[in-house]
Amino acid sequence: MAFASTESAGRILTTGDGIPHSPREYAALLTKLSDDVKADSFSRDGTVAALEAKVAALLGKEAAVWMPTGTLANHLAVRMLAGDRKRVLVQKESHLYNDCGDCVEALSNLNMVPLAPGKATFTLDEVESEMSRAASGRVSVPIGAIQIETPVRRRTGEVFDVAEMRKICAWAREHKIGTHLDGARLFFAAAYTKVPVREYAAMFDTVYVSMYKYFNAGSGAVLAGPRALLENAYHARRMFGGGLNQVWPFAAVALHYLGGFEQRYQRAVAASEQVIAALEKDGNFEIRRVPNGSNIFSFRMRGVNAPIYQQRVETAGIVMQTPESGEWFQLRVNETWNRAGVAEIVDRFRRGMG
Amino acid sequence: MAFASTESAGRILTTGDGIPHSPREYAALLTKLSDDVKADSFSRDGTVAALEAKVAALLGKEAAVWMPTGTLANHLAVRMLAGDRKRVLVQKESHLYNDCGDCVEALSNLNMVPLAPGKATFTLDEVESEMSRAASGRVSVPIGAIQIETPVRRRTGEVFDVAEMRKICAWAREHKIGTHLDGARLFFAAAYTKVPVREYAAMFDTVYVSMYKYFNAGSGAVLAGPRALLENAYHARRMFGGGLNQVWPFAAVALHYLGGFEQRYQRAVAASEQVIAALEKDGNFEIRRVPNGSNIFSFRMRGVNAPIYQQRVETAGIVMQTPESGEWFQLRVNETWNRAGVAEIVDRFRRGMG
Amino acid sequence: MAFASTESAGRILTTGDGIPHSPREYAALLTKLSDDVKADSFSRDGTVAALEAKVAALLGKEAAVWMPTGTLANHLAVRMLAGDRKRVLVQKESHLYNDCGDCVEALSNLNMVPLAPGKATFTLDEVESEMSRAASGRVSVPIGAIQIETPVRRRTGEVFDVAEMRKICAWAREHKIGTHLDGARLFFAAAYTKVPVREYAAMFDTVYVSMYKYFNAGSGAVLAGPRALLENAYHARRMFGGGLNQVWPFAAVALHYLGGFEQRYQRAVAASEQVIAALEKDGNFEIRRVPNGSNIFSFRMRGVNAPIYQQRVETAGIVMQTPESGEWFQLRVNETWNRAGVAEIVDRFRRGMG
Amino acid sequence: MAFASTESAGRILTTGDGIPHSPREYAALLTKLSDDVKADSFSRDGTVAALEAKVAALLGKEAAVWMPTGTLANHLAVRMLAGDRKRVLVQKESHLYNDCGDCVEALSNLNMVPLAPGKATFTLDEVESEMSRAASGRVSVPIGAIQIETPVRRRTGEVFDVAEMRKICAWAREHKIGTHLDGARLFFAAAYTKVPVREYAAMFDTVYVSMYKYFNAGSGAVLAGPRALLENAYHARRMFGGGLNQVWPFAAVALHYLGGFEQRYQRAVAASEQVIAALEKDGNFEIRRVPNGSNIFSFRMRGVNAPIYQQRVETAGIVMQTPESGEWFQLRVNETWNRAGVAEIVDRFRRGMG
Repeated sequence: MAFASTESAGRILTTGDGIPHSPREYAALLTKLSDDVKADSFSRDGTVAALEAKVAALLGKEAAVWMPTGTLANHLAVRMLAGDRKRVLVQKESHLYNDCGDCVEALSNLNMVPLAPGKATFTLDEVESEMSRAASGRVSVPIGAIQIETPVRRRTGEVFDVAEMRKICAWAREHKIGTHLDGARLFFAAAYTKVPVREYAAMFDTVYVSMYKYFNAGSGAVLAGPRALLENAYHARRMFGGGLNQVWPFAAVALHYLGGFEQRYQRAVAASEQVIAALEKDGNFEIRRVPNGSNIFSFRMRGVNAPIYQQRVETAGIVMQTPESGEWFQLRVNETWNRAGVAEIVDRFRRGMG
Repeated sequence: MAFASTESAGRILTTGDGIPHSPREYAALLTKLSDDVKADSFSRDGTVAALEAKVAALLGKEAAVWMPTGTLANHLAVRMLAGDRKRVLVQKESHLYNDCGDCVEALSNLNMVPLAPGKATFTLDEVESEMSRAASGRVSVPIGAIQIETPVRRRTGEVFDVAEMRKICAWAREHKIGTHLDGARLFFAAAYTKVPVREYAAMFDTVYVSMYKYFNAGSGAVLAGPRALLENAYHARRMFGGGLNQVWPFAAVALHYLGGFEQRYQRAVAASEQVIAALEKDGNFEIRRVPNGSNIFSFRMRGVNAPIYQQRVETAGIVMQTPESGEWFQLRVNETWNRAGVAEIVDRFRRGMG
Repeated sequence: MAFASTESAGRILTTGDGIPHSPREYAALLTKLSDDVKADSFSRDGTVAALEAKVAALLGKEAAVWMPTGTLANHLAVRMLAGDRKRVLVQKESHLYNDCGDCVEALSNLNMVPLAPGKATFTLDEVESEMSRAASGRVSVPIGAIQIETPVRRRTGEVFDVAEMRKICAWAREHKIGTHLDGARLFFAAAYTKVPVREYAAMFDTVYVSMYKYFNAGSGAVLAGPRALLENAYHARRMFGGGLNQVWPFAAVALHYLGGFEQRYQRAVAASEQVIAALEKDGNFEIRRVPNGSNIFSFRMRGVNAPIYQQRVETAGIVMQTPESGEWFQLRVNETWNRAGVAEIVDRFRRGMG
Repeated sequence: MAFASTESAGRILTTGDGIPHSPREYAALLTKLSDDVKADSFSRDGTVAALEAKVAALLGKEAAVWMPTGTLANHLAVRMLAGDRKRVLVQKESHLYNDCGDCVEALSNLNMVPLAPGKATFTLDEVESEMSRAASGRVSVPIGAIQIETPVRRRTGEVFDVAEMRKICAWAREHKIGTHLDGARLFFAAAYTKVPVREYAAMFDTVYVSMYKYFNAGSGAVLAGPRALLENAYHARRMFGGGLNQVWPFAAVALHYLGGFEQRYQRAVAASEQVIAALEKDGNFEIRRVPNGSNIFSFRMRGVNAPIYQQRVETAGIVMQTPESGEWFQLRVNETWNRAGVAEIVDRFRRGMG
């Protein structure tokens, strides 16, 4: 969505996962960063390479490669991991299964097998049952890769059960089946499950992390994994039409926000939890958490009309999205929750009451 | 290639097709433009839509759509035009046939049939002969599209013969075969053949023009054509992983340089032709033109060692690329040739003589 | 499976769906038929065309085309029906989803979406829910075809619920989504549900029927449907490598057994039902029917060791397959049940008791 | 083409590559062979396996696998050899490039690069030039396989130059590029070049030989090569829809004619050469040979109207195809040339003069 003008330093912006930048703010930031930028050539070298190295280090992986979008990052990961073993297990509710135009089938001739409809987590039992089904077929179609997304966007940020994840990844490694983590919002999952980002990454062969959702780049993604797998991935990236001439205007911003993000975000989450606790005690507010959720919660105000509340609270310094229907607001916890103290934020919520 | 630092207003930069921008210059330009920018959402609306509309208007087409790369622009054009008629005729020397990882076969299952090896131009006779060959096959494989690239990068900027182009496109229209123009550098072809850009575009169903080569955006391409064909192209763009979250940092710059380019570039070409004529008369220089060429010519200096000449002429204000081998420099005519008058430019070339 | 020698006219052979022919019997039959055979050319014209016409007429379809296998018949049907609408709904338990090497994804880039795991029947609700899911995706991926298999081999011959089938096919027609019936054993479904073969076929755009399972050809399949869809299907058949030089040695046999099969098989089923009823009354036997099943039932003998029983009953004139485990025999009702009267068959089963 | 009735033992049939069988003759032959036939199961085991073993032995290869058609045999060979190296070099005049519906691109996403337009033979120079072109591309697309067809059907049976073939195959082996021989009519090439079939086969990784063209099976092909490559090829065969339930009615006939064919055919060629020499000396006949040709030659009769000659010579015992245009008959040398002595055949040709 296009960002509304958001140029006001102290505001809490609950509508997205990152810090929105207006074009003016974005250009100003680029100017500030530009002396340290080294332009890339067709998405290689320079500042892009610096970003790739930093992401690889953060995730504890040998290598990382820039991708223009998460769609391509996930797609190339499962394509490379699967090779000519043509089945890929995914969550039926995953982004890749629902929102990428069936690219995996359409362009890479793999068969995505959907597991656990209506849920964030599939189990090792379900994986093993697919293994048996594959073995029972008259034509051999080995499973080449398993992809797990966490948190799951289509499940309002619910995270994949970590114990089950460990079992599945260990089993896959034993069976030489590739594993890929769609960690678009992995840093959110880590903050809420208390499982460090590196520990998540260690379970999987490859990991994709978004560069625009919370590192505030205009666009982009990074795919991390083994060097042997990724060192020629730029060829496939280019074949798909993703070898952009220059992407430093994205990479420089991501690199800027990446440093220290994990700590800053933990602070924001801690603050938000205190705010939520305070609001829950206050009889005027009602909060709904997503079970096993992450940075998204719902909220309503008793006794005040939603549009009026929204207007007042915006004046007080909290921007919220208009409810899709009814009076429940959906709020997201992001870095902007660090822009004010807990007491101040609670006070702003209260000021909306009039 | 990464741009060398080029921050010096009056210099003629003969090494590329456009005006190189250092990251600092690029960021400064974005800041200047940012008040008029409207951010896009997943490469749609806002300033991107404004750019699409402007390119469509310039080319006389109903619609246009942003693409992250020329690779994807060409690929989606022939994919959409061909539909389930699976043969696509191309120049054997074309970029799409050589430099895009065989994406058309690998991802769209089309068969690119290469014509006219070693040449820029294929003839209607060759097209008709492929038509007969297709008809003679035991399994029906109709020709779905013809792509023509002009100028041809692998032929040092040689242009496709325009008379032959007219015949082929008319024939194709009659036979309901789609036609696509890889016009990455179409504005160069137009300036040298004196066939206006719109007249080129009118021959073809779809046209791709690069946004980074001479409109100086960091990256990007625009594909123009019939509305019915293009209005849903953003779905395929996204499926391929080309639906970037925000591309206004590219689109804004392209939009900036696009206005008036055709005229400015004609001036630069006129100036360069006068410079070349002057140098040709001067016994110290030798010039080699590409037959039916466009903005690339070769040049050497008699009696002065090439590296020494290069250094002196750079001091005088003309940047040239080190010869790949020997003493012949390859020069490109771009907008920077407008930065000084003809006499001054000639004088700079002479100053290199020592 | 390779046929055991079965050359004994009066025997009831419960191990397969058709009448097994030894090579000698098959060659003798071909000799008998050969005066009326017209050889085909690359699977077209001659006796093959006669068979195609006869199948089309039986199913009430405009046209029919020979296919070397059911795998190719099902594949080409959904490929042609779907066109560039890339999702195809299938039963998760279907043959096409499990036993054909994921050919639909691997070779036609379609996404088979599996419905109703563990069941023979999916519902219109599930179809509509997939329709909503498709509409919710960020990239448009329309549903192009729905395939239904009945009876379902992997569900031991359970048939798809006919009322649900009618609803789904009507809904699909309304939404211009193609429908294909994997009717490999359609004549069995018809005999058990009492829904005539033509009535089944009328619900669907295309129907595949096996030529070898009960019409006793060595190999082959026929795909029936609209003339406009099928008249050029031989091109695709050849592209896939299925345009065999001559197939009359299969087509002639299928044509021979096709005539009158529906009536003969109804008699066999009626006889088998009387036999089953008689055995059920007899305390020495135990029968297990598949709920909503067709021509497969299980059977055991109390008090006699299975291998001994099998040997004795074979001497009496009933051939049964050795149980996969334990004492339950799986029996199939086919045309050979017409080879003896009901009383005689019951008596043979009893003679196995010793 | 459908065979005209050809049931007349002593006739020379110059219209095809093999011995035509009417359905009655074919069925009679099957009956004769049937006692030794073991039925296959889904194209595996039994007589098919016996045929595969015999072809492998004849060609000096480790393994061989039945294919329903040459189209599939060639396709799977290059698909398996290329793997993920996506370019395949072929003759522009080859069957695979022209007559198989572009299956290699459409279904296996490989790029067939056509060499030597208008010729039977390409050179090692052309291969190396393609190697350089591949290396010059911006995206890596390695050459995975080279296919050579000999004799070339579209060049009226002209053979590929054997010296060049040796050089190309040796070079390919050195560069670890797969090589496949489309030897549909390999036994003809061998008889005319005097290079034994095994020697041809030894140059290549894989070889396909037709089972119906001169071994007189109704349909079928065999692909021979390394065991490691072929032992799982039946999976791909089935995925493509080529896993027919039973093919012994083809395999048994091919096996019957295969034994001793090489010797019998050499005799036929020797006889035909003597006949040709005799006719060439006779001023009433004119012969045209294909340079570097094989079993096809053209022939005309001076002073006698072609249709009248055709009728008379048929009465004399030589069946010829009506000329496509004019008076030149195209004759093929096949096993039926052994049905009479040289003098008798020459005499028959003369009897047509009236």
